[in-house]
Amino acid sequence: MTVLVSTVKQMIADGKPIRAVACASTGDTSAALAAYAAAAGVRAMVILPRGKVSTAQLVQPLANGATVLAIDGDFDACMRIVQQLAEQEGVYLANSMNSLRIEGQKTVAIEMVQQFDWAVPDWVLIPGGNLGNVSALGAGFLMMKELGVIQKLPRICVAQAQAANPLYLAYKEGYDKFHAVTAKPTLASAIQIGNPVSVRKAIRTLQKFEGVVEQASEAELADAAARADKTGLFNCPHTGVALAALEKLVARGEITNRHRTVVVSTANGLKFTDFKTQYHEGTLADVPKPRHANQPVLLPNEYGAIRDTVRRILDQKA
Amino acid sequence: MTVLVSTVKQMIADGKPIRAVACASTGDTSAALAAYAAAAGVRAMVILPRGKVSTAQLVQPLANGATVLAIDGDFDACMRIVQQLAEQEGVYLANSMNSLRIEGQKTVAIEMVQQFDWAVPDWVLIPGGNLGNVSALGAGFLMMKELGVIQKLPRICVAQAQAANPLYLAYKEGYDKFHAVTAKPTLASAIQIGNPVSVRKAIRTLQKFEGVVEQASEAELADAAARADKTGLFNCPHTGVALAALEKLVARGEITNRHRTVVVSTANGLKFTDFKTQYHEGTLADVPKPRHANQPVLLPNEYGAIRDTVRRILDQKA
Repeated sequence: MTVLVSTVKQMIADGKPIRAVACASTGDTSAALAAYAAAAGVRAMVILPRGKVSTAQLVQPLANGATVLAIDGDFDACMRIVQQLAEQEGVYLANSMNSLRIEGQKTVAIEMVQQFDWAVPDWVLIPGGNLGNVSALGAGFLMMKELGVIQKLPRICVAQAQAANPLYLAYKEGYDKFHAVTAKPTLASAIQIGNPVSVRKAIRTLQKFEGVVEQASEAELADAAARADKTGLFNCPHTGVALAALEKLVARGEITNRHRTVVVSTANGLKFTDFKTQYHEGTLADVPKPRHANQPVLLPNEYGAIRDTVRRILDQKA
Repeated sequence: MTVLVSTVKQMIADGKPIRAVACASTGDTSAALAAYAAAAGVRAMVILPRGKVSTAQLVQPLANGATVLAIDGDFDACMRIVQQLAEQEGVYLANSMNSLRIEGQKTVAIEMVQQFDWAVPDWVLIPGGNLGNVSALGAGFLMMKELGVIQKLPRICVAQAQAANPLYLAYKEGYDKFHAVTAKPTLASAIQIGNPVSVRKAIRTLQKFEGVVEQASEAELADAAARADKTGLFNCPHTGVALAALEKLVARGEITNRHRTVVVSTANGLKFTDFKTQYHEGTLADVPKPRHANQPVLLPNEYGAIRDTVRRILDQKA
């Protein structure tokens, strides 16, 4: 998003008649657009379906001073409106069909390799909904290979929620026929997409990277996120989908401890406090038996009782 | 916290009989302890007052696998219990009275100077509750000066919530007499402390750094946080206290645009979604007239009406 906003700022400086950057979004895209636009001093406009977005999801673009238009319509209606505004009102479209978004996301691949001191990982796992990010990831690696910065490519795994798995189904059929599906509700709400915009690009990328596609059920994604949290992380449910895919690839021996493996984490876990709280309380409808649930131990204000409990816990787990 | 946990890990490796690290905490300390301990493979224990901590605040230590003991008592009772456990049960105390916490926090000063390519800022503003952090900040700068890494010291401003301002009151009296106060509720909940543990150290630090103390009302801290958000940030209320102090120092000419100034931000704004939402809705009891409130514009799903509104907004603010 910073690449897109920076480019727009340059275009405005060059005299282009751009009056605002805009997107239709129910979450992270609007937050990112509003923040970068605020930092750049460019006006941001966010168009979203009224009543479908919680105030908590709204608060980031509002705090960053974006103009937020809440429309009596669904996400598709918002998308049509923002496209029309882009054509007719001098508003610059910031949704991911804008190729500057993909250009910017290429840096994910570059940062990965740089942080390994220019070594290429063996595997990269990435959650997939609209499938723009896997194309960008692939484009970044291909660019580095063409430039001679790297000599090999990683294998890529796209991880989808089972509730919204059209790419997984196509992969199982050898990509011959892709069919959109009706996405069912999933805890991984940002990838609840049945007809991904960038599916063709994603398939081409997977074919170049010896790619695989995996899926995760609600219980699998929630348990995988919670298991990884126990190492000190704080994962969002989308990252949980990719972590569950990792577990599956490890279980069937495709990834071993000789493989340097990267899991792309896509959102801040603090945006998903309810998901985590309900997981540990055991109240998530689709995760009736959370495998890593942790609950507080309730105790009276009495040192003897507390000491005995502490001793018992320390002995138990030692 | 990472310095403390790393030291404990080394002590365990050296054969010290430490069975767990523990703290009494209602928020960030427990989250940090649990995360670093999980990463280090050291058992963490968090002791907190039952019913005084929201599940959202609880979820980080729970997710990171800490043992969470919820006691029928107040924070002071929890503090006494964790101290007793530390003396008698092989549990290592991680609260900020442990000097390893202060040693670790010194790096805040080092990072600041490093990120300015080893130039010393003119001013550092930091929110203050229990006042350990300002002592650590000062100790870091003094260490660098003794080592010859830097040649001068910044001035320091401690910013307190008006609702919990014992250091501010003492500063106004020339520090001659410090009196604890009863802290009143404040949006800056983590610095709602009337009798700061580290007040003596903090006063010594301020005296060495030509220090000042400022305070911020609830409206001032909320407006300052919201104003800074409009530049693309996403501030917590404690950072808002320091930003409000900055505005006051600028208003009376102590800080000008010739001064390189750093404001220490102390928590992730995503932990304070309710504060931000209520600010923009205008429903915070102590902030009846939020100066930077931003609300969504509700519109029908009708292109003509939306276009007219967009034109009006673009013309208005241009």
